[in-house]
Amino acid sequence: MFAKTFNTLYRPSATNRIFNSSFTKLTQNTRTIVFPNFKLNRCFSTPVSKEKLIVFDTSLRDGEQSPGVTLTSEEKLEIARHLSSLGVDVIEAGFPIASPGDFDAVARIAKEVGPLMNGREKIGKPMVIAGLARATEKDIKRCHEAVSHAPLHRIHTFLATSDIHLKHKLKIDREECIRRAASAVAYAKSLCEDVEFSSEDSGRSDKDFLCKVLGKVIEAGATTLNIPDTVGYTSPEEYGVLIKYLIENTPGGHKVVWSTHCHNDLGLATANTLSGILNGARQVEVTINGIGERAGNTALEEVIMNIHTHPSSYPVFHTINTQQIYRTSTLVSSLSGMVVQPNKSIVGANAFLHESGIHQDGVLKHRQTYEIMSPEDVGVFNVNLVLGKLSGRNAFRSRITELGYGDMAEVDFNKAFDRFKELADSKKRITDHDLLALLSDQVTTDTAPESQRFQLQSIQVVSGTQMATATVKLMDSMKNQELVDAAIGRTGPIMAVFGAIQRLVQRKIRLLKYEVRAVSEGMDALGKVIVKVTEDVDSSGLEAVANSHEHAIAGVVKPKIDSEGNTKLTKNTYHGHGTDVDVVLASAKAYVNAINRIFSEEIRAATGKQRSSLEERIANV
Amino acid sequence: MFAKTFNTLYRPSATNRIFNSSFTKLTQNTRTIVFPNFKLNRCFSTPVSKEKLIVFDTSLRDGEQSPGVTLTSEEKLEIARHLSSLGVDVIEAGFPIASPGDFDAVARIAKEVGPLMNGREKIGKPMVIAGLARATEKDIKRCHEAVSHAPLHRIHTFLATSDIHLKHKLKIDREECIRRAASAVAYAKSLCEDVEFSSEDSGRSDKDFLCKVLGKVIEAGATTLNIPDTVGYTSPEEYGVLIKYLIENTPGGHKVVWSTHCHNDLGLATANTLSGILNGARQVEVTINGIGERAGNTALEEVIMNIHTHPSSYPVFHTINTQQIYRTSTLVSSLSGMVVQPNKSIVGANAFLHESGIHQDGVLKHRQTYEIMSPEDVGVFNVNLVLGKLSGRNAFRSRITELGYGDMAEVDFNKAFDRFKELADSKKRITDHDLLALLSDQVTTDTAPESQRFQLQSIQVVSGTQMATATVKLMDSMKNQELVDAAIGRTGPIMAVFGAIQRLVQRKIRLLKYEVRAVSEGMDALGKVIVKVTEDVDSSGLEAVANSHEHAIAGVVKPKIDSEGNTKLTKNTYHGHGTDVDVVLASAKAYVNAINRIFSEEIRAATGKQRSSLEERIANV
Repeated sequence: MFAKTFNTLYRPSATNRIFNSSFTKLTQNTRTIVFPNFKLNRCFSTPVSKEKLIVFDTSLRDGEQSPGVTLTSEEKLEIARHLSSLGVDVIEAGFPIASPGDFDAVARIAKEVGPLMNGREKIGKPMVIAGLARATEKDIKRCHEAVSHAPLHRIHTFLATSDIHLKHKLKIDREECIRRAASAVAYAKSLCEDVEFSSEDSGRSDKDFLCKVLGKVIEAGATTLNIPDTVGYTSPEEYGVLIKYLIENTPGGHKVVWSTHCHNDLGLATANTLSGILNGARQVEVTINGIGERAGNTALEEVIMNIHTHPSSYPVFHTINTQQIYRTSTLVSSLSGMVVQPNKSIVGANAFLHESGIHQDGVLKHRQTYEIMSPEDVGVFNVNLVLGKLSGRNAFRSRITELGYGDMAEVDFNKAFDRFKELADSKKRITDHDLLALLSDQVTTDTAPESQRFQLQSIQVVSGTQMATATVKLMDSMKNQELVDAAIGRTGPIMAVFGAIQRLVQRKIRLLKYEVRAVSEGMDALGKVIVKVTEDVDSSGLEAVANSHEHAIAGVVKPKIDSEGNTKLTKNTYHGHGTDVDVVLASAKAYVNAINRIFSEEIRAATGKQRSSLEERIANV
Repeated sequence: MFAKTFNTLYRPSATNRIFNSSFTKLTQNTRTIVFPNFKLNRCFSTPVSKEKLIVFDTSLRDGEQSPGVTLTSEEKLEIARHLSSLGVDVIEAGFPIASPGDFDAVARIAKEVGPLMNGREKIGKPMVIAGLARATEKDIKRCHEAVSHAPLHRIHTFLATSDIHLKHKLKIDREECIRRAASAVAYAKSLCEDVEFSSEDSGRSDKDFLCKVLGKVIEAGATTLNIPDTVGYTSPEEYGVLIKYLIENTPGGHKVVWSTHCHNDLGLATANTLSGILNGARQVEVTINGIGERAGNTALEEVIMNIHTHPSSYPVFHTINTQQIYRTSTLVSSLSGMVVQPNKSIVGANAFLHESGIHQDGVLKHRQTYEIMSPEDVGVFNVNLVLGKLSGRNAFRSRITELGYGDMAEVDFNKAFDRFKELADSKKRITDHDLLALLSDQVTTDTAPESQRFQLQSIQVVSGTQMATATVKLMDSMKNQELVDAAIGRTGPIMAVFGAIQRLVQRKIRLLKYEVRAVSEGMDALGKVIVKVTEDVDSSGLEAVANSHEHAIAGVVKPKIDSEGNTKLTKNTYHGHGTDVDVVLASAKAYVNAINRIFSEEIRAATGKQRSSLEERIANV
């Protein structure tokens, strides 16, 4: 029954009845306060007379645009698998034209994650795999080639519609804007039934012109219209009013799904998205942990838990498996290197902690006094003692299944179990936090053999108040050779270790970011180190090689072409992770991990997979 | 002129005209979209026909309730000084009855920060110093003793008003609730003109009962009524409707200032607060970086920058010096140990960074294309090279003045300059980030001599893949004795150092949190280590000493009495900071810093300043 309702409502071309906004209703009459329903909801909200909310996750596209975030194909695949079992409806897997690497990642996700049904039994459909494309035939064709491997796929194309963009960036007039948008959508439609169009910088576009463009785009076959608030400037009222206005005034507006895409520059992304839903939007574009450019995008977990805890306040139901939220958040934070602050809503470390005496007391006496949702609702489990040195394979398997890793291949399970036993040697009590770190770390390091050229064999350090000396032994698996060297570190043992590694790999590496986090509490806490590095090329050198293919191939310099064809150069940055109870060892592992990425990028470049000179990895939608 | 308008509007007892909410207007007619004004506003918004928004910062009370945050009196004073020059109108300095330490901190802030006018010239008044008190004579009297040292001061008292709280927590009926609230306010009014009352858990209180309680409280003399959404469950519409309803239906409601207090459990604190303002609230309770219990409070910077960038959308003006926001955020993050995530609105590291090619291009071509406020508006300066080894006192003084530290005493300036020179020896280029870390770190360590019993003299470490050994030399300034010992660390050099320090101070310390952050980029980045520790008493022991004064004096066990007089025990936690280019040394400094706090608490306890047995440090308002 559920699946049927879902199917009926889900089809992007389905007519969407627009609800009278309860938002307006609430503010018109101060006497009809609708107090929320405090019953905890542990299952999907029922679809009775409600429409399905389509959750479109763009962690891998807009989220990957966060400064400093660079994900490998393996990491993107792992995140995509998690998003599929989380119950996400549509995933934006990347921007295929940007580079062969980006194309490969999208194509692999389409092939390998596209058909998955694990955790989606109630939804009854696999995840739609979408790719982004500028409003040109070349982009759209390339996008279709990547996503069409998936049973359900979508082309998402975009064009700016604000006068400020048309004039200063695209240098075209309004007529040309309408022509380009409509012909791009028509071409996409000729390849694929499911086409989404985004009007970039909608928030600053003339609304009647916007209706005109969007009307033409619907005529051309678009099934979803996305209205981004690119600069994060809009207030919930303004955004809601805009969505409602567009739905009502765009010719054919009632035939398509309207979508929100909000940025968090002023802290209002979640409120704007919810206001969009109240005013008729039936798709939300979101990211895990709200990652994304500048202050980021709307956080998936916040929008979903608002709807989840207020089932009677929104005209939609969702089909997200909320108990997978925390696990997905941990994975994305770990792989992207984007820290989640302790006071982050829903997924922050403190979100369910109570310091206060009165609170603790209240919680004990009457759980509903202070908790509006239970930690288990989002998959935050008891972090007390779970496993130790004597725990066997079965106990380990059952715990990681509870944590959502039940679908591991046997070979991966065995690796994970070995690492668990190794950890249990140096750490008495292994908590869920430790296990999640261990499992997500495995994803980071268990990449293709080509991306693991150097392996850390041993380190030895002497340090003190004055000076540090480190000796490091690495295995170079490409040359099948053991390398040993030493270096001093004027600023401590970690820098001595990094110096010795630099000597061994014979590269000059610049450390851009260094971060350590304790994964759990106690003297034997697992430490997770995240480094971000770049090869050191001084900026005058960068200027000189502006058009040199050599450097592009070496992966050092990333040429970019902006929307008018001007070339720009940026240096590639790489991040690495390492987890160990010893912070110096964890740092060494992270550093070697990052360096392996540099070499792996070079191999990819040398074998003809270098980044396209027409590279354009980023869009503002 | 400005000062005059301010004075007229600011008086808490001033009649507050309630504006017709533009919120309602905007949603009623979809054709009257008010597009925001894109002009950048670099000065105060003009007060013409607008009312002054009173900014009430509770970083030191509600913010300090964040799990793991413990601030010393010196740190609280430093934060209070920053809040005063930021232009905050009212500061909640603490909960004086909670403990003699809390009382001292509030009293010192009242005396030392209460009269300050630095940076408040345009406001024309010093900051109001408020203290929290439960609705009992004893609490209120103690609160008044602490705050009355300030030229402008306020008593803030609270009582729960929801049936769920009355029944399960307070075990009183509605009549008794009204009686207690009114008599508490009447008593407070007999001591102090400026009295605020908060109805705890307003969001779940029966609204007509709430009007009744609040009416009696106004009769008794309250000048500000605060409506907390304690559980962070309300939506912007519901919260706005509630505020409007209460203003209109509470007898005497138009005579007082209404205040918002929102929590961020569902990511809506800022939106709820703004909705409160649109519906008549003229005070906002906020914290820097949104710190606070669970997912935290409303972030000051988000509310202010919304009003700042949308001057025509809100019926209020603010008098915050926005260019001090980033500096204050850095200080609070540093002293509280609460990390700010890179994608945090306004103050996150990425908030003003653009990864995207198109964005960078847009920014260059037309700054307004993608920036809705400039980094300088919130005091984010260029982080490039500023100072080096050869920079003199004048260059240093002029830079730190630009960073907002121009008002340093000469002795502190000299100390800071010495530390700067020391740092310049190991680090070539000193950035603003380094300087801010150095200056805020100085605040942390330059406490009274009694709180610096142990000084780190030197450390020496040998470590490697197998095992680490550390030798540490400490100076015990109380016994005037040099101590040296060594220890091994099974989990690396830092644990070896911590082990050796534990031996020297002869205490068993449990590490609860360990965190390292790089303050700036590059191989010679300053690392900042934050540790949180507690003395290790096993929980059975804790039970046994429930009523033992010895342990309370030793500062190990913190007895708490909840609102019905039940005693509870929690262990004190202490945090420490250390900054160094060497992470092992920074860790050692942080650990010694935390241990010095334990001993300083003991000294305080031994000299009769032990925490009151009637301790209650926390409230949920």
